[in-house]
Amino acid sequence: MKKLINDPRAVVEETMEGFGLAHADLVTVSLDPMYVVRKDAPVVTKVGLVSGGGSGHEPLHAGYVGRGMLDAAVPGAVFTSPTPDAVLPATLAANTGAGVVLIVKNYTGDVLNFETAAELAQAEGVDVRTVLVNDDVAVEDSLYTAGRRGVGGTVLVEKLAGAAAERGDSLDAVEEIAKRVNAHVRSMGVALTACTVPHAGVPSFELEEDEIEIGIGIHGEPGRHRLKLESADAITARLLSPILADLLPTPGQRLLLFVNGMGGTPQSELYIVFRAATQILEDAGLQVERSLVGNYVTALEMQGCSLTVLALDDEMIELWDAPVHTAALRWGV
Amino acid sequence: MKKLINDPRAVVEETMEGFGLAHADLVTVSLDPMYVVRKDAPVVTKVGLVSGGGSGHEPLHAGYVGRGMLDAAVPGAVFTSPTPDAVLPATLAANTGAGVVLIVKNYTGDVLNFETAAELAQAEGVDVRTVLVNDDVAVEDSLYTAGRRGVGGTVLVEKLAGAAAERGDSLDAVEEIAKRVNAHVRSMGVALTACTVPHAGVPSFELEEDEIEIGIGIHGEPGRHRLKLESADAITARLLSPILADLLPTPGQRLLLFVNGMGGTPQSELYIVFRAATQILEDAGLQVERSLVGNYVTALEMQGCSLTVLALDDEMIELWDAPVHTAALRWGV
Repeated sequence: MKKLINDPRAVVEETMEGFGLAHADLVTVSLDPMYVVRKDAPVVTKVGLVSGGGSGHEPLHAGYVGRGMLDAAVPGAVFTSPTPDAVLPATLAANTGAGVVLIVKNYTGDVLNFETAAELAQAEGVDVRTVLVNDDVAVEDSLYTAGRRGVGGTVLVEKLAGAAAERGDSLDAVEEIAKRVNAHVRSMGVALTACTVPHAGVPSFELEEDEIEIGIGIHGEPGRHRLKLESADAITARLLSPILADLLPTPGQRLLLFVNGMGGTPQSELYIVFRAATQILEDAGLQVERSLVGNYVTALEMQGCSLTVLALDDEMIELWDAPVHTAALRWGV
Repeated sequence: MKKLINDPRAVVEETMEGFGLAHADLVTVSLDPMYVVRKDAPVVTKVGLVSGGGSGHEPLHAGYVGRGMLDAAVPGAVFTSPTPDAVLPATLAANTGAGVVLIVKNYTGDVLNFETAAELAQAEGVDVRTVLVNDDVAVEDSLYTAGRRGVGGTVLVEKLAGAAAERGDSLDAVEEIAKRVNAHVRSMGVALTACTVPHAGVPSFELEEDEIEIGIGIHGEPGRHRLKLESADAITARLLSPILADLLPTPGQRLLLFVNGMGGTPQSELYIVFRAATQILEDAGLQVERSLVGNYVTALEMQGCSLTVLALDDEMIELWDAPVHTAALRWGV
């Protein structure tokens, strides 16, 4: 295992220390229990937005804490759900009295731990709503999931719900936006190489030198099938086809196309995939109205990518374009 | 070789097509000759800023074209200088009559080709100045260089000179800022793994499973020495020590600390290095005033990082904070 780390067991803590130092203008980092909150939290009368999950997917979620997106994020150990005793104080820190929406990727551990934290926060008088993200069309159930997994679409849910909360929407309205985005977003990924969890020290799985895995999860958990390496155009078609078959966009539908790097893929390859995906979507009579290309939901140093397609409506476009100021997404401010 | 590509010989062209599609609001991409210009270029009466070099370092340079940074970028083949017949039209496109500054990383091929293009542009009546970036303290001469190589510091030169040009500084003033930044910036890198040039198909060099290379270049060219993998803290000290010995900052000096990923390194590891570097700098009585952490000058899928330290003055801080709107760096707009 070759990593720029010190103690494998201290990876998350040292990452968050470094993150706090680099973004001291944006966030405050609590190390024990571990969570990240907006420097200016709680923002008076605003609905709070909290997310979290296992580490190793950086910049998800701490990189999305700031104006126009999350109020707090809770990183667990690598690929391991954060515990309720960390989710609870993050939820309380994000509460201004207007209530809190928890955005939870659909993994069994996350669902349980966030649900427990929600109940504890409710017992303290906070109105808490939970929105599950389950955008991965690759598999219906998985190693860590009942139902579909939450992957790249999470970033879009957090951005759009975050913009709604920032403009002063009610708790009901922010919850509705988050659910609406989740209902209209689909994703699927591919791995060219495995990744190694620091405290495990060995790759999570093995791929032959000429083999890729279609439908991979962001923890390296199994996807749909393995096959020989193909061209970027062919792989892109393999990812987009089940996405479109499930999303069923109407002709002329405006889309947000998000090509996400898994952590170890050069940016050039992501743009080659973006090019291929745009061609397929436009040939299908669809309209790529907004785009995002880069490493936004990663699996450590895994090589590969995921495609995420969101069917946009006017309000979603307005919320996407709204100012955001976080470590990993920033515009308009 | 496992890459998300189609034809290895079409990697740069397809990358730039995808880039142009994803950032159609920002840039116009010319494929033959290949260069990228600001959508709104030429901006009336503004000094033009042009850079370029071999591809494979994305987002450098095309990712820095836009308001407050470059007016044009010229990507060559992977790890290969662009030719004068591409640099010339990019230079002409960036010229509004106020002259053009070419920012050139100090590699023999780049220096020659940009110099030829500068002469051709001058023959067409454009006042052209060339600023060489040579911030890498690792080696004095290298495979591809007489003198020090230009690496991470290039991004800072482009940002600060770009902000100076955007606020309306004269050609002399923009040239002076670019040279001043280069005079006060130092970098050094480390590789944990090699990278593979697509049309070569095999790794540029070999590293044992427990071996790293200190002082690596951004094309995988040799650095200072190889050693066994150490802790992130120890590696960070090995990179910072020669930087500080060369930069010789005065006590209390304000610094911009830039931790750059080589392309295949997880963000978490970059923050662990940032944490270590901050501790060393603060223990030395120096002040980390601004920071940048991420993949900004890469070497394809290489795992590793570089550290860049810029000694800031008041004007540099003002120029760093000024609005920028490019594909890879964006704030204030």
